[in-house]
Formats: sequence, C-alpha cells, structure tokens
Amino acid sequence: MTSPPDLRRLLASLVVVRCSGHLSDAQRRYPRWELPNAELRRLLAEGVGGVILLGGSAAELRLRTAQLQRWAGSPLLLCADVEEGVGQRFEGASWLVPPLALGRLHGRDPARAEALAESYGRCTGRQARLLGLNWVLGPVCDVNNNPANPVINVRAWGETPAAAGGLAAAFVRGCQAEGVLACAKHFPGHGDTSSDSHLELPLLPHSRERLEAVELPPFRAAIDAGVASVMTAHLLLPALDRERPATLSAAVLSGLLRRDLDFRGLVVTDALVMEAITAHHGPAEAAVLAMEAGADLILMPADADAAIDGLLAAVQAGRLSNAQLQASLERRRRALERCAPPAPPDQALDDLEQLVSGAEQRLSRELLAQSLQLQHSGTAAKPSGGADRRLPPGPGVNLIRLDTQLQAPQLPAMAPALLRPAAAGYGATVLDGRSPSPWSGDPEAPLALERLAGGPVLLQLFVRGNPFRGSAGGDEPWPAAVRQLLAAGRLAALAVYGSPYLWETLQPLLPADLPAAYSPGQMPQAQAVLLEHLGMGAAALEGGFTD
Amino acid sequence: MTSPPDLRRLLASLVVVRCSGHLSDAQRRYPRWELPNAELRRLLAEGVGGVILLGGSAAELRLRTAQLQRWAGSPLLLCADVEEGVGQRFEGASWLVPPLALGRLHGRDPARAEALAESYGRCTGRQARLLGLNWVLGPVCDVNNNPANPVINVRAWGETPAAAGGLAAAFVRGCQAEGVLACAKHFPGHGDTSSDSHLELPLLPHSRERLEAVELPPFRAAIDAGVASVMTAHLLLPALDRERPATLSAAVLSGLLRRDLDFRGLVVTDALVMEAITAHHGPAEAAVLAMEAGADLILMPADADAAIDGLLAAVQAGRLSNAQLQASLERRRRALERCAPPAPPDQALDDLEQLVSGAEQRLSRELLAQSLQLQHSGTAAKPSGGADRRLPPGPGVNLIRLDTQLQAPQLPAMAPALLRPAAAGYGATVLDGRSPSPWSGDPEAPLALERLAGGPVLLQLFVRGNPFRGSAGGDEPWPAAVRQLLAAGRLAALAVYGSPYLWETLQPLLPADLPAAYSPGQMPQAQAVLLEHLGMGAAALEGGFTD
Repeated sequence: MTSPPDLRRLLASLVVVRCSGHLSDAQRRYPRWELPNAELRRLLAEGVGGVILLGGSAAELRLRTAQLQRWAGSPLLLCADVEEGVGQRFEGASWLVPPLALGRLHGRDPARAEALAESYGRCTGRQARLLGLNWVLGPVCDVNNNPANPVINVRAWGETPAAAGGLAAAFVRGCQAEGVLACAKHFPGHGDTSSDSHLELPLLPHSRERLEAVELPPFRAAIDAGVASVMTAHLLLPALDRERPATLSAAVLSGLLRRDLDFRGLVVTDALVMEAITAHHGPAEAAVLAMEAGADLILMPADADAAIDGLLAAVQAGRLSNAQLQASLERRRRALERCAPPAPPDQALDDLEQLVSGAEQRLSRELLAQSLQLQHSGTAAKPSGGADRRLPPGPGVNLIRLDTQLQAPQLPAMAPALLRPAAAGYGATVLDGRSPSPWSGDPEAPLALERLAGGPVLLQLFVRGNPFRGSAGGDEPWPAAVRQLLAAGRLAALAVYGSPYLWETLQPLLPADLPAAYSPGQMPQAQAVLLEHLGMGAAALEGGFTD
Repeated sequence: MTSPPDLRRLLASLVVVRCSGHLSDAQRRYPRWELPNAELRRLLAEGVGGVILLGGSAAELRLRTAQLQRWAGSPLLLCADVEEGVGQRFEGASWLVPPLALGRLHGRDPARAEALAESYGRCTGRQARLLGLNWVLGPVCDVNNNPANPVINVRAWGETPAAAGGLAAAFVRGCQAEGVLACAKHFPGHGDTSSDSHLELPLLPHSRERLEAVELPPFRAAIDAGVASVMTAHLLLPALDRERPATLSAAVLSGLLRRDLDFRGLVVTDALVMEAITAHHGPAEAAVLAMEAGADLILMPADADAAIDGLLAAVQAGRLSNAQLQASLERRRRALERCAPPAPPDQALDDLEQLVSGAEQRLSRELLAQSLQLQHSGTAAKPSGGADRRLPPGPGVNLIRLDTQLQAPQLPAMAPALLRPAAAGYGATVLDGRSPSPWSGDPEAPLALERLAGGPVLLQLFVRGNPFRGSAGGDEPWPAAVRQLLAAGRLAALAVYGSPYLWETLQPLLPADLPAAYSPGQMPQAQAVLLEHLGMGAAALEGGFTD
C-alpha cells in the first residue's frame, strides 16, 4: 500500500501546470494563468510531472526548460502549443505556414503534401528537442468543414477526413522520429463547431455514423501512425454522452477512444481552466471526473493543489482505483522512455546556434511558395515584377487590419507589411480592436474615408481563427468596404493573410487585373513573399536605429 | 615596427560595432543597423574590440554576450544604452524611472537624491555584469535646461548643473563599484538643443564662459568621480571650433576634454552612423577625423571594414601617429583591467536567477513613489482610495496616446494602463502615429469625439523625449483637447507618463478636484502605482490565456 505522501506525489506526476517561457515573474504575459516561480518550484518539488509553456524566445525557453528540469529532480513532460512550428510561440525558431495550407495541396498531390507534412513535423520536433521540450501539442486532427469555426480554421490539416488524417499522421511520424511526443487533438473532433470552447461549451449534434465518417478517421490515422498522446475536446456529443463533455465522459474516453479505437498511449485533457469546464465544476471535481472518465493527465487545472488533493481523496475513497492509477503512471513512464534525453544545461548556446537548419529554412520558403495564391493566375509561379503589378505612385494609404497590434509577433516595427509599402509612398494606418473607429455606420459605404489619408489604398487584412477572439473577423464588413474602395477608384491592391475563407469571399469581387494575393501565413516572411508578387520588392530598411 | 596585418588588428580593437541582443539574424529589430551573425563573427575574428547591443531579453543577452566573447577570443568591451536600468533595453532586468525624476528631488534634498542615484548606478552596473556587459553607456551629463529638447528630456539627471553633476557622479560611483565602466555623455553637453542629432547637426551658440558655467560642470563632476569613459556629441560649438562638430574636433576632444579637464580615460565617439556625421563624411574619413581629433574608440561606423581600413591607411601615411595609437590601446587595456571578468558561459541560469535582488526591487518602488505627482497634493503621500478619487461608472473611454504600440515595452497586452480601466468599464482606444485620425481639424475642439465611444474619458498620455521621434509629442494639441473634454463634461481623469513639461502644461488647466497624476516612468509598474492613486486598484487580470 502506498503511503499518502507518496501517493500524493504519484498523483501530482499526472498533473501538467502552466508557466511562462520567460525566466522572471515580471515578464509573464498572462499572469492570471502562469504560475509565479515560487509556486511553480514548490509544485515541481512536490512531484508535479508536467509543464506547458507559452511565451518567451527560443533562447529563453532553452534556459527555462533546463531550469524546470533542475527544480523537478525527476524527468518532466515539457510541452507547448507549437502547432505551426516552434517559432509560432518562441521567437527565433521556425514559424511555418498554418497546416491548412497543405490541406488543399493534398487534394491535388497527396504524396507531395504528406512529404511536406512529415518534414513539418520533423522540423517542429527537432527544434522542440533542441529547446528542451519533449512533447508537442499537435497535430490538430479536427476536420475543418465549418468555415465559421472561430477557433480551428487554419490550425486544421484539412477540410476533408482524408487530407486531415493523411497529413496529421505524417506530422506525427516526423515529430516523433525526433524523439518528441506528438498529441492528436481535439478528440473526438472540434472542426464542425461555430463557437469557441474557451468561452462556452459547444455542442456537436452528429450521430455515431457521422462521427465514424468525418470526425474519427484523422484520429484513427494518427493512432495508426503511433501518436503518443491524444487530447480531449470540451465538447458535448449527445450521440455518445448526453450529460458530460468529451473531456469528462467515460463513454468517449474509455469507450470510444480506448476500447473502440484501441488507443494505448496517454490521454490528456484539454486545459481544465477553460470556461466550458469551470462553469460547471470546481478544480478538484473536474480533475476527478476526467480521470474517472479515462484521462491519464490533467492539463492546466484551475488550481493545481486542489486538483491533486481531489485526486488523492478520490483514490482514498475508492472512487479511482489503484489499478487505473498504476496504468496511467505506466503510460507516462513509457511515454518518457520514448523521448530524447533532456538537453544538457551547459550546451544551451551550442543548441541555439544550430537551431534552424538550412533544410528547415528551405522548408519554410517552400511551404510559403506553394501556398501563395494570386488574383492573376490562381497560384503563384514566380514573381512577375511587371509594370502592371506595381502600385500606383504614392502618397497612398497602407490600410492594415489585425486583431491586435500590441505585442503582435506578425507585425514587428520592421515588418515587410509596413516597410515595403512605405518605400512606395504608402503610409500605414493600422486598425485593430482598440483603434478610433474607421467605420461610418453606412452598410453600403462602411469605411469612413475622411478618417484616412488620401490617395490609393493598399488593403492588408490579417484574419484567422484564434482562441478567445470570437468571430475570426467575420463581423467586420470587408466585402462592402472592398466594393466601396473599388467604386471610389481607390483600391490599389489587396493582401489577405490567414483565413482562406475571407480570401474566397473577397477575391471574386476584384477586377481580374487588380493586384491581389493570399497567404495562409501571417508572419513577416509571408508578407515579404506576398508583397514581392504584388510588385513590392525588398525595401531599403528605414527608420531610426534605437528607441 | 608592427606588420600591417597586426596593425590592422590593433586598429580594429578600437572599433565598436553594433549587433542585436537576439541570437538569430531573423530576430533583429533593426536589420539595417545590426550586423548579421556571419559578418559579426568575421569582424570579431579580425580583432574588432567592442560591441554595442540592443534588443532581446535579459536571458537572451546573457547567452549573446557569452557567444560574442567566444567568437572574439580576447576580451571585448560589451556595452549598451542602459541609461534607465538594464531593463530599459533588456526585459527581465530592472527598468527604473528616468534620471530626471531625481533632478527635482536634488533641489530639495541633495543627499537623499545622490544616495538614490548611487543605488541606481549600482543596480545598473550589477545587472549589466550578471548579463555579461562590462560598459554602461551612461550617465547622461547633459543639463536639460531646454524643455523643447526632443532627444534628452527625462534622460538627463537634472535641469541645473548642480543636480546633473551631483547625480551623474553618484551614478558613476555606483556603477563602477560593480566592476562595470560608466560613460559620461554627450560631451561637451547636449542639453540645450532643440533639434535631434540623429536627424541633423545641432548648433550650440554658447560662449566658453557659458559652457564653463552650465554645460561642463557635470562632466567635471563625473571625471572627478573617476568615470572610465566620455562620449562625444555630434554638436557644432562655434565658440570652440567653427568647422567641426565636437566628435571630430581636436579643440574639443584634445583641447577641452584632455587638456583642460584633464580626462585620462577612454574617449568614445557617439554613433558615427548618425546623420549629423554621415551627411558630411564617409565612414573611413569620419573614423580618421575622430581619431585625429582625439577619440580612442570609434562607435558604430557606417561601415566597419571601411573605418578600419581608413585608420590603417592613416597610420601608414603618418596622419595618425603611432604614439597616439599606442596611447589609445593602453587606455583600452587599462579600462578592461577595471572590469569584472566575463561571466562564465555555464553559469547563465544561476546569474539569471539572481538577476533582480530584493534591494533592487525596493529601489524601483521607492523611485516610483517619490517621483509621483498628484493633482490634489502635488506629491504623493499614500494611496487615498477615497470615493472622490474613483472614476465615474463606465462605460467610458480609456484614451491612450503613445508614440507607437508596435512592440511597445510599456504597453504589453496585460499593462495596468489597459487592464485597470477595463475593470472599471473603460474600453481602450489607443492613438499612435498609425491610428485613423482622431483629430477634427478644429483648433478649439481638436478631438473628433464622434470617432470615439461615448461616456467619460480617462486620458493617458505617454510622452517623452526619444531619438528619431522629432518633437516629444509637442506638435499634438493636448492642451486644447483637455479644455475640450472639460467643456464637454467628459474628462474623468488624466494620467501623464514621461515628460514633466507636458504635465506642467496640462495640470494648471484642471479643476482642483479632477483626479490626475504624473509619473516620469512609463513602464507597467509606473502605471500600476499611478492608477492606484487615481482609485484604480489591482484589477482582476482579464482576457484569454493564449493567442
């Protein structure tokens, strides 16, 4: 019989807490969600077995993971939501175009698309390992068959089960070949919802047959590829369980996932702090319900101490069996055995100097090039640079829309989206949720043009699905604004970065000769490639040299 | 006789080049000015003897300085413009209120102000050393006696020679006691200009007598305190030299500084890439002229190779004497001997874990508290929190003005300036140089109120002197806007962060009972302290937990 202190320690090893990738408390971006160092250190000393990291550069992350391993003593599961390459979250690593970019290529050339997805997984796994992570919280296995989905969108690998499954499985093979665990999510499928489970509990009304046909195949493909872990969705699926969301449902986790799909790896909950869970259950009960349902690991409980104490009480009361506990511990042990050993602390600089390989740089460029779409030819061949593609001479307006410009990694002060139009005489006006309103209130002419400078307008829209953002920009009248600018003879060019659905809505409104292009990527490299195709080559880098 | 290759190497050791504090080329914020790694590594291998760093977090800087020392082989001078604490440039270290905050305290209590300035220097030196820097490019010794100065402003330690000198000398003692060199700048005094030498060459029409009375005393004080280096100004002083700016003037550097002020340490130019120099001289000639005039070190030449080759040719042609070269090399050697040894690469995590001490945290808070000014009492006593200090109930507008919100370290997404008003129902509207215009064109009622949401307005202005920004905000009609909001009965509260001159312009316009406050600091910690005094205590931290 395990003594209570030892038992508590074992249970703690099944909990994954959240911290910032920065070293100091003052640098935390989300202090409500990220443990301060003193508490983090105590929890690791008490046996907490995993950490999810967000924020910080690659260099900071490399030091941070070494610090966490040092504080813990025994090997940790160290993970991050790096679905789009490690550089999506940690600056300095590779930030790749979102997965959906490969979904459409898969329709035309599945072998090529899957080879690229495997390289994508390999790049992500290799860089994660060099930075001390051993667990990538991807691939998304959801089929994005609902363009109104506010939270999945370009994060999915495909709009069909075949594309999503083939590409997700390829990502798993690539990532895990580098000694880093992958994670298929969000089980049993979050693609066909139009609400955000970060904010409320979505309901999926599909039958079991429909789930077998659409939602489950990508998870089967990932499991066949040997994926080490599966993350649950905070979704209600009445066909499987009328009362509990998938995360807390024995029918979904023990019945469907373990028994029917024969998954033998780690089952981890999505973050238990999400409103879909916390609105209904306290942190202790949520953790116990998830373990009862069949989860092995508890991710981001609202209160880690309460969750561990709740699990301890549940084991002592016989609500959770010792056999189940031992099985979860054994799965965690086996998962850690599959991982490359922790990065040695004193090799940080060496690891960082080799972080992005030449092959990975080529992969970034290739993914961008093959996913670019142009108004003229549909897909990009090579930069034209012909006079017809040049912007009209400035002064003009470089009208940029994005969710927020505060700490926006896609819009550093030297972003091509700012510098290249500036070199052509187009001064930037940036719209986000905190701008003075650019809207007139007139649905036919929604832009209040008198609030902008005069001259031709280069319109650059950064829109994609993001957690907590609600609508993926779908509530802004961009089609009417494009028609308004065309009617006024002022639309010089259009760039859409992110959502293919916005591009597909706007593109048909454009004259055939209007310079316009789309990239699924929003990062500065995507801007450079896209604007090159609109006739804006590398600009002399402008501005001051200090701040 | 030194062979040309060895001679070139010796001359290279007197050149200080610029790089980013980030490890990867892709992370550079100012790629026009920051050498890519391949070039940087080559120059260090060829003997370049110093690097100025900008950008990156404290953790990244710690790895970066170790990397540079490794690339160089022999000890480097590693410096940064950390005039306001290392955290001003490198997140995670202490970011202190600007020096001018202590200038006024010096008028009332010089001993107290100088003790704080010495702690300020000690904090800056200690943290610089832990991160691998051995040279702080401060203190500013300019007397800020011209409120229209667009580039010095709150960076100065005082508005009188006594305050500027006493406090700058105290900073030097504190910093150098930590084994880190300080640098008195910008010789012979940049305080009384109304133009920015980053953009043009300012002229100082003062007589030698006036210079002796106002500009020079702080430099004499710093030299008496043993300051290791002095940086030259790109200023024309016809009373001393009718043709050449101070940086290139033998009368100023060899005559005034070395002979008259008997300075025996390192003389370093300000950045030679600045327009005041490059508009008139190529990179080779600028470097040779500076050395001829009496400089020991060449900072940020527009082209390092050209500068070194130019110096080599000048020595070979006899334009620069071997004696002068040897004297400069000897001064550099002596300066390095005063420095603490380089931080060992494998102790990065230990150094970072002890980066900000408890005493330094208390110093930050004390500097903030003593420099806060309130509309009610003039200076802050303690938070009142009385009902009369509460904002009117929202919904209201939190109108924030700053230079730019792109990568603004003072305005992270969780900044108190955003979160605390939000908790009171005040939604943020952020104005910067890229916003849709908030201005009506009417000088009497300059704010176009229909472009903002309705309700009471909390006005938060972030204005201070910054290089390359032109006017320190002086061209925006804030006095008229404040009168307009008052007349409309909509001004709920005012916060000014940064320039005391803007506060002193606006404060007399306010009713005595209007909640209003000023802090010289703009950092999140300053916002928290100031808003606390306006009745906005710590807000529940809001918003999503990912992005």
